[in-house]
Amino acid sequence: MLIAQQLEYPSEIREIREAVGQFIEAEVKPRHKALSHLADDASTRYDSTGRYVQPIRDAIREIRMASAKAGFYAMCAPREIGGEGLGYLAWYGVWSKVAEQTAGPYWMGDSMIAHWASGPSPVVTQLSDSCRAEILPALLSGEKTMCFGMSEPDAGSDAMMMKTRATRVDGGWRIQGSKIWTSYSPYASYCILFAVTNPELAKARKGGISCFLVPTDSPGFEVQRIIKMWGQSGGNEAVLLFNDVFVPEQNLVGELDKGFSVAMLGVNLGRVYNSARAIATASKALREAFEYTRQRQTFGRPLSEYQGLTFPLTESVMDIQCAHLFALHTCHLLDQGHRLNSQLAIMKHQATRSAYVALDRTMQTFGAIGMTNEMHYSEMFLRLRMVNIADGSNEILKRTVSKSILSGEFEI
Amino acid sequence: MLIAQQLEYPSEIREIREAVGQFIEAEVKPRHKALSHLADDASTRYDSTGRYVQPIRDAIREIRMASAKAGFYAMCAPREIGGEGLGYLAWYGVWSKVAEQTAGPYWMGDSMIAHWASGPSPVVTQLSDSCRAEILPALLSGEKTMCFGMSEPDAGSDAMMMKTRATRVDGGWRIQGSKIWTSYSPYASYCILFAVTNPELAKARKGGISCFLVPTDSPGFEVQRIIKMWGQSGGNEAVLLFNDVFVPEQNLVGELDKGFSVAMLGVNLGRVYNSARAIATASKALREAFEYTRQRQTFGRPLSEYQGLTFPLTESVMDIQCAHLFALHTCHLLDQGHRLNSQLAIMKHQATRSAYVALDRTMQTFGAIGMTNEMHYSEMFLRLRMVNIADGSNEILKRTVSKSILSGEFEI
Amino acid sequence: MLIAQQLEYPSEIREIREAVGQFIEAEVKPRHKALSHLADDASTRYDSTGRYVQPIRDAIREIRMASAKAGFYAMCAPREIGGEGLGYLAWYGVWSKVAEQTAGPYWMGDSMIAHWASGPSPVVTQLSDSCRAEILPALLSGEKTMCFGMSEPDAGSDAMMMKTRATRVDGGWRIQGSKIWTSYSPYASYCILFAVTNPELAKARKGGISCFLVPTDSPGFEVQRIIKMWGQSGGNEAVLLFNDVFVPEQNLVGELDKGFSVAMLGVNLGRVYNSARAIATASKALREAFEYTRQRQTFGRPLSEYQGLTFPLTESVMDIQCAHLFALHTCHLLDQGHRLNSQLAIMKHQATRSAYVALDRTMQTFGAIGMTNEMHYSEMFLRLRMVNIADGSNEILKRTVSKSILSGEFEI
Amino acid sequence: MLIAQQLEYPSEIREIREAVGQFIEAEVKPRHKALSHLADDASTRYDSTGRYVQPIRDAIREIRMASAKAGFYAMCAPREIGGEGLGYLAWYGVWSKVAEQTAGPYWMGDSMIAHWASGPSPVVTQLSDSCRAEILPALLSGEKTMCFGMSEPDAGSDAMMMKTRATRVDGGWRIQGSKIWTSYSPYASYCILFAVTNPELAKARKGGISCFLVPTDSPGFEVQRIIKMWGQSGGNEAVLLFNDVFVPEQNLVGELDKGFSVAMLGVNLGRVYNSARAIATASKALREAFEYTRQRQTFGRPLSEYQGLTFPLTESVMDIQCAHLFALHTCHLLDQGHRLNSQLAIMKHQATRSAYVALDRTMQTFGAIGMTNEMHYSEMFLRLRMVNIADGSNEILKRTVSKSILSGEFEI
Repeated sequence: MLIAQQLEYPSEIREIREAVGQFIEAEVKPRHKALSHLADDASTRYDSTGRYVQPIRDAIREIRMASAKAGFYAMCAPREIGGEGLGYLAWYGVWSKVAEQTAGPYWMGDSMIAHWASGPSPVVTQLSDSCRAEILPALLSGEKTMCFGMSEPDAGSDAMMMKTRATRVDGGWRIQGSKIWTSYSPYASYCILFAVTNPELAKARKGGISCFLVPTDSPGFEVQRIIKMWGQSGGNEAVLLFNDVFVPEQNLVGELDKGFSVAMLGVNLGRVYNSARAIATASKALREAFEYTRQRQTFGRPLSEYQGLTFPLTESVMDIQCAHLFALHTCHLLDQGHRLNSQLAIMKHQATRSAYVALDRTMQTFGAIGMTNEMHYSEMFLRLRMVNIADGSNEILKRTVSKSILSGEFEI
Repeated sequence: MLIAQQLEYPSEIREIREAVGQFIEAEVKPRHKALSHLADDASTRYDSTGRYVQPIRDAIREIRMASAKAGFYAMCAPREIGGEGLGYLAWYGVWSKVAEQTAGPYWMGDSMIAHWASGPSPVVTQLSDSCRAEILPALLSGEKTMCFGMSEPDAGSDAMMMKTRATRVDGGWRIQGSKIWTSYSPYASYCILFAVTNPELAKARKGGISCFLVPTDSPGFEVQRIIKMWGQSGGNEAVLLFNDVFVPEQNLVGELDKGFSVAMLGVNLGRVYNSARAIATASKALREAFEYTRQRQTFGRPLSEYQGLTFPLTESVMDIQCAHLFALHTCHLLDQGHRLNSQLAIMKHQATRSAYVALDRTMQTFGAIGMTNEMHYSEMFLRLRMVNIADGSNEILKRTVSKSILSGEFEI
Repeated sequence: MLIAQQLEYPSEIREIREAVGQFIEAEVKPRHKALSHLADDASTRYDSTGRYVQPIRDAIREIRMASAKAGFYAMCAPREIGGEGLGYLAWYGVWSKVAEQTAGPYWMGDSMIAHWASGPSPVVTQLSDSCRAEILPALLSGEKTMCFGMSEPDAGSDAMMMKTRATRVDGGWRIQGSKIWTSYSPYASYCILFAVTNPELAKARKGGISCFLVPTDSPGFEVQRIIKMWGQSGGNEAVLLFNDVFVPEQNLVGELDKGFSVAMLGVNLGRVYNSARAIATASKALREAFEYTRQRQTFGRPLSEYQGLTFPLTESVMDIQCAHLFALHTCHLLDQGHRLNSQLAIMKHQATRSAYVALDRTMQTFGAIGMTNEMHYSEMFLRLRMVNIADGSNEILKRTVSKSILSGEFEI
Repeated sequence: MLIAQQLEYPSEIREIREAVGQFIEAEVKPRHKALSHLADDASTRYDSTGRYVQPIRDAIREIRMASAKAGFYAMCAPREIGGEGLGYLAWYGVWSKVAEQTAGPYWMGDSMIAHWASGPSPVVTQLSDSCRAEILPALLSGEKTMCFGMSEPDAGSDAMMMKTRATRVDGGWRIQGSKIWTSYSPYASYCILFAVTNPELAKARKGGISCFLVPTDSPGFEVQRIIKMWGQSGGNEAVLLFNDVFVPEQNLVGELDKGFSVAMLGVNLGRVYNSARAIATASKALREAFEYTRQRQTFGRPLSEYQGLTFPLTESVMDIQCAHLFALHTCHLLDQGHRLNSQLAIMKHQATRSAYVALDRTMQTFGAIGMTNEMHYSEMFLRLRMVNIADGSNEILKRTVSKSILSGEFEI
């Protein structure tokens, strides 16, 4: 087993984490408090189309732009495109910090760091020069955002079942198809879209899929509907329609028929992002659950004296600490340039699985009160429920690891 | 599910179940469909106070009244108060049927049977003659409903920590205090309220708590706020304030200082109700999940060929079938007059725990689509999450059973 | 455990259970006590070949014969071959009783009931008249026993991979091959052997396997070695060699090429037997574990006050009670003539899985002392570990159930 | 959370591990092979008293002495008493290596490193000068060994319930009492014994317990019986009797009434030892289980294509890798001088719990063959079952961690 040389954050990451913490206090929380009549309750956040109401959208954009100015927003985008060029460990450390200080009550804090799918990220390096010149400034400043159109209704984990087609026409491509689960798309100015350009190659699982930059104001582009989940009245994902959308030649992203190599540029960042958020959220919830057991009495004794409650919480503490170490270790190795498919899968599985269980136990500890909107645990719980599916379901991750073990690629 | 002849529902219950099924088709579903623009989406169900919007409230009342007319609504209320006087097995059988045909998309179906806390039930037998004469007709017809005010902010499972006080005054009682988690209270005409009438007895855990009928239009009664959970914008539970509320002498329910014996009259019904709903919901979800694995392809094979998905579903089928048998068995014994604290605890624990796990696995099988409002699994999942706490949390149930084993009261 | 009148054993089974209990006191325990210097300790039970030492073998035969005389031994053998012709529920009830009174310290008690593979059982009905006349009297009296040679080194759950061959020769058959895991074979006078008689049919999974009665004193038959497990020095299973063994024509059992229908005659009995033993053993262990928590003190309080110990035990009580009900129910249905592949699989899975977990928790409760030979829990634990594999591993059972659900054969 | 600066073994530990590997090939395996007729089978290892037979005892002593000569045996004993003075990470690394190469078939390999309770360790630094002079040379050379007499029949995890008494007499102490579970005692020349010297202090949990060096040939010392577990015919633990045993003044170890500070000197080493062995054993078993799934066919496909088998194995791989990282990290921090009660508890819990589960799944994968003496998995499985109790049961470890969290001593 490959072992990282060290685990503690180096001093430059500790400094960034501290600066991020101060930024949250100064720039995120005040905006939240000013909008608390809208932002605190899921029932007032969304308009009738399922999008955030305008004041919240404005606040989110302001947070992005302030963060860009402060040098945080594009932290993991490569320097060649104007980002800070920080690595995976920094990414993990900063997302942990953001989750710790904002998860739940200050949820707009999420916007302060560019997600690989919505903002400047390694994916942008694959744009043609003209596209880059056109869209990069507004992406880097946080003024505009993107989305990443990959999943389709009948193709879940198996991207080869894609049906969206791009057909070469004079001066460019015409795109026909539909995407689902496209995060950030209700608000995005651009879509990084995947489409089949060579059906034979695609069928043979040898490529044949290409990637295009599609402005969301292109004729034929439509956000068909916002996807609403968990009984809520709005959301961040949508179904997109591409009805004969034209894009010019230079909007091809990366090489023709090799779209998946573009997709891969963000997947690692996504798994680290989900792990960091999951672990930091769970740690916070467990701390609060233990604190609650000290305060709350039943049958004449504090809850902290009932092992029926404290033991499951303790098991979650143990699992979360192990998952955290594994994640730090994986980020160190990634920063050293190792390719780590199986370790990334283990990291994401252990982080999101044990965090989900931790939140479930936290809610059981708090009882009914833990499920109220005020306590925000239900938001964390539902988000963790989702990330046991999103960005590689637990089953896909186990499949990845077991296949790598069986092929000898991953030594245990 | 094939049932041993000895556990099968007797013919009269089979007939009721069939009639209930027809009632749902004729009286519930059409009303739902007519209101689908409001009822289908959690974001349009509630008004700004968190209550159901008026057309939904009207439909719910109509369903109650139609069901009362058809002879279903008061099925488990004793005959002496005008109910049908059916037993626990019938109660279980009918709630299973209602859940099977309505859980999720036709959720208003729940209203067709009087819950022990909201409608005519054994609790009503404890009312004074004058109270009974006053409120029973409208309760039996489904026109008006009640709620059951027991839980308080600082007293969860330990009812002895109650702070609401009823003080004897000329001609009656004055009540001061607060209740939380009172189901059905946003819509109720009456509240069955528990208050301390003798603090010394209460402190010594020897009674001292009494029960009162409080009309919700009494001066000083206030629904302080609807409790919102899971990010939703409304709900069925509320926080109630009693600010010097006066009730006349005859509104005492049952004996002075012995309010808990009134409370106990509904607890068994509540546990059977929750178990029936949980098991029927889980069975339906598992059936649909297996069906989905047959239809959905990934990596060139149907999901049904991946044991990583089918084995967890199969384990849930096994657990649910065992829990169903245990519930049928417990209802049979209850109907024979046995007192069964531990068995009721086991029944509720196994039913709600394994159903929750079953829904979790169902959602993992469907992937992200299983979490959308359209699929209704998220509603079932969240409701099952709650009933692992409500009406006796899993920990309280395990405590009940282990104490009974240790005391020798429950033989294993 | 209180049982719904509908699931309680009928009076004739209650009477048999009582009589069996008296038999154990009168005929089993005294023999054990007389041999306690040999039987109590696994290190003195076996001779250098791994077989029980002769005094133990004698005692086991005596118990069999006394039980046969008392009318218990052949309880489930059909009446047409001289058995008692009792059904599945009786089989379950009696094995529960035997396990309850003998599991652990009085392990020879197991011999008092003919296992389907070792004694008179439905399998015997398939013998030719001459074979039946020859061997049945000694089988029925308990003087002699059989074994059932099915598994082979390279064929676990997939019987179609069988390599043992029977070739037709003048006047009979010549058998060449090897068997493994053959229970009872170190002591058996006869072997019911499965061999390929038509390789083409076998390859196509359309039969081609036949069944033969082989006396263990036939030339060429050899018990190659006793299989030793868990570090012990002897056992009940062996590897058998068949080196050109001749059997006459009439030793064919059942129809040519249709050996599997013979095999199936015992499988149901085996699954009920394993379930009964598992559940009765676990119930007993859990009772004793709870009792121990009342007596043992640590840190100034009895263990019974630590939910960290009592809650896992309570969860096992809940699971075991559900599994017990499911087993009773399945036996009732079997006795009514239903074919129940999936229910038998569920029954065996739930019984042996939850009993194994119960023993694991029992041992954790007792601490190190629970692992000593004196306490006998380790024997029960290891036996339960094994029956999660033997007679259909948990995975095979889940495969059976999921395939039946998917094919629509088993409705849930 | 405190994070180690690095995780990879430094080069000097890598070199030791390699040298240990060579030593095993040269000095351990040949001795095993020469005694395979005795050592391979648990039934021939022990004599009638339950001790290893003499040739095995001789071989074990030879291995110890060869290892001492090679500089491995006393690797973790402090330099001031002649040990190598290596730290926790080296201890972990070497025990991992020993387990990897010897666990199961070459079990005598365990003897090559002095366990803290049986050989030279920090405990020895507390001996008086005269005792040290007398016993240290033979301890360091591996010629003689010790044992550690702490547990008593009625005092499990709660050492304060100790009943053994040491009474001051002219020139020394007289000891009366009994010990149980004393590992290595059947073979030891000396016993480090704990006895109450001040009952009032002991009762108040303020000390009052002292530690003595007792030669096992002292009059009144008796190995009452070897403790036999899991049905085996011998063992390494015994019950000891001290019947008015006299030891001279200088045999007091450490300070009077402060025996527990002596005990603590070995506990950390013990937890690291158990974790290293558990994780290395589980890793090896999982590797072999995956390999087996590639080779074994059933129903026409290799087992590796059944997720019902590979997914549980993969989950164990994930857990074991996380536990391994946590252990490395903890050892680094211990070597830097941190006091880490909770981390040691987490490390031992996660290592032994997940390794036990891994072996359980390994055995399920191999089927019945995995339980045979030949495969050695059953030995590993039973040993792992035991270390979920020994040296701090899982419940005691969870209690330690939860109390530290609640007191604020351990920050999560």
